[in-house]
Amino acid sequence: MTNLTLYYAPGTCAQAVHIALEEAGARYEAVRIDLAAGEQRSTSYLAVNPKGRVPSLVTERGTLTETPALLAYVARCFPQARLAPSDAFGFARMQEFNSYLASTVHVAHAHRPRASRWADEPEAQAAMQRKVPANMTECFEFIEQHWLGDGPWVLGEQYTVADGYLFTIAGWLKSDGVDIARFAQVHAHSQRMRERPAVMAATRG
Amino acid sequence: MTNLTLYYAPGTCAQAVHIALEEAGARYEAVRIDLAAGEQRSTSYLAVNPKGRVPSLVTERGTLTETPALLAYVARCFPQARLAPSDAFGFARMQEFNSYLASTVHVAHAHRPRASRWADEPEAQAAMQRKVPANMTECFEFIEQHWLGDGPWVLGEQYTVADGYLFTIAGWLKSDGVDIARFAQVHAHSQRMRERPAVMAATRG
Ligand SMILES: N[C@@H](CCC(=O)N[C@@H](CS)C(=O)NCC(=O)O)C(=O)O
Ligand SMILES: N[C@@H](CCC(=O)N[C@@H](CS)C(=O)NCC(=O)O)C(=O)O
Repeated sequence: MTNLTLYYAPGTCAQAVHIALEEAGARYEAVRIDLAAGEQRSTSYLAVNPKGRVPSLVTERGTLTETPALLAYVARCFPQARLAPSDAFGFARMQEFNSYLASTVHVAHAHRPRASRWADEPEAQAAMQRKVPANMTECFEFIEQHWLGDGPWVLGEQYTVADGYLFTIAGWLKSDGVDIARFAQVHAHSQRMRERPAVMAATRG
Repeated sequence: MTNLTLYYAPGTCAQAVHIALEEAGARYEAVRIDLAAGEQRSTSYLAVNPKGRVPSLVTERGTLTETPALLAYVARCFPQARLAPSDAFGFARMQEFNSYLASTVHVAHAHRPRASRWADEPEAQAAMQRKVPANMTECFEFIEQHWLGDGPWVLGEQYTVADGYLFTIAGWLKSDGVDIARFAQVHAHSQRMRERPAVMAATRG
C-alpha cells in the first residue's frame, strides 16, 4: 500500500488515524489542515471532503472519511501489523468501542467547541457547554468500568487501532474541565501510549 | 450461527439490525424493550447493556452493542447473504456511511427526543429541538448528493446492511418535521426497501 494521504489537524480525532498509520508502518503523506483558520471550509478541502471535517484519507481507489471506518481500513490493509482482532467477535468488539467513541464520547465533547451545530442561541450553547464535563465524566466512568479490564490495552492483550482512538479522545478531557486522573486505568493507558514510538511520531505536530 | 438474541424497540436504530438479521436468514430471538415505559433503564436490561440503549445483540461469546458494529458483525457471520462488500475499500465505504449515520445523522435527530442529554435547561432543550429540521435536512441533502449515485442501493449495485440503516433513519424525518419527498433518491430508496420481505418482517412490530 502506497499513495495514501491523510488530511489531519493536530489533537483532533484525525490523530487516531495518524497513530494507526504509524503503527502499521504505512507509507503516507500527512497534510495539515488549519482548523482555526477555517481551512476545512476552503474550496480546495471541500473537494477532498465535502463534509468539511478531518480526517480524510485519500487512497488509490478514492477518498474515505469517518474515523472508525479509517481505523478499520488501516488495520485491514496492513494485516502484518495485527492492529485488529482477526475473529468476527473480537473485530466486532473493537468496532463497538470505536463506534461508541465516535457516536457518544466524541459527540459529548463536541458540545463544547462546536455547540453552534445544535442550537443558534448563545444561551443554549452556553447551557450545552456547562453540561460537557458531566457527560464526559459519565462516558469515561463507563469506559473505566467496562473496558481495559485486564489491560494493558482496550481489548486486553492485543494492541489495536482502538488504543490510539481512546488516547486521542482522553486527550480532550483536560480542555473539557475533567481531570483524567479520576480514571485510573484510562490515565495509565494514556501514559503507556505516550511511550510508543508510533504515538510520538504521530503527535509531533 | 444460532443463539442470537436481539433486544430492540420498533422504529429505533435497532430496526436496522433487525432488518439485517432477516436479510441474512439468521435464526434469532427478538426481545422487545418498551422505551416509553423506561424498560431500557430496568435492572434486568442494564445487566444486558449497561448503556441502557437498544440495540443489543447477545451472542454465544458475549453481548455486542452499537448499530454499525452489529451490522458489520451480522454481514460477516452470514457471508452467503452478501450483505457487505468483500474488498477492503468497498467495506470501508460501507463503514464510512454507517459511521456517518451513527455519529452525525442519528445524533442530529436525537436532539429532538433526547435533548436533555446535552443540556438541563428547558429553554436550551427547546433551542436544540428547533434546529433539528435544519440539521436533518442538511444531512439528507448530503446523502442525496454523495450516495445512492447510480442506485438502486446506498453502495450502488450491491444491497448491504447500510440500506436498512438508511431506511430506518429516513423513517425519522417525518417526526422531525422534514418531508422525505424533498430527497428524491432517498424517498425512492425507502419505497424500494418497503417491498423487501425482510423489511416487512422486521418492521411488523
Ligand atoms: N464523525 C467524524 C467527525 C469528524 C470531526 O468532527 N472532526 C473535527 C475534528 S475532531 C473537525 O474536523 N472539526 C472541524 C469543524 O467542525 O469545522 C469522525 O469521526 O471522523
Ligand atoms: N450509538 C448507539 C445509539 C443507541 C441509541 O441511542 N438507541 C436509542 C434508540 S434509537 C435508545 O435506546 N434510546 C433510549 C434512551 O435514550 O433512553 C447506536 O448506534 O446503537
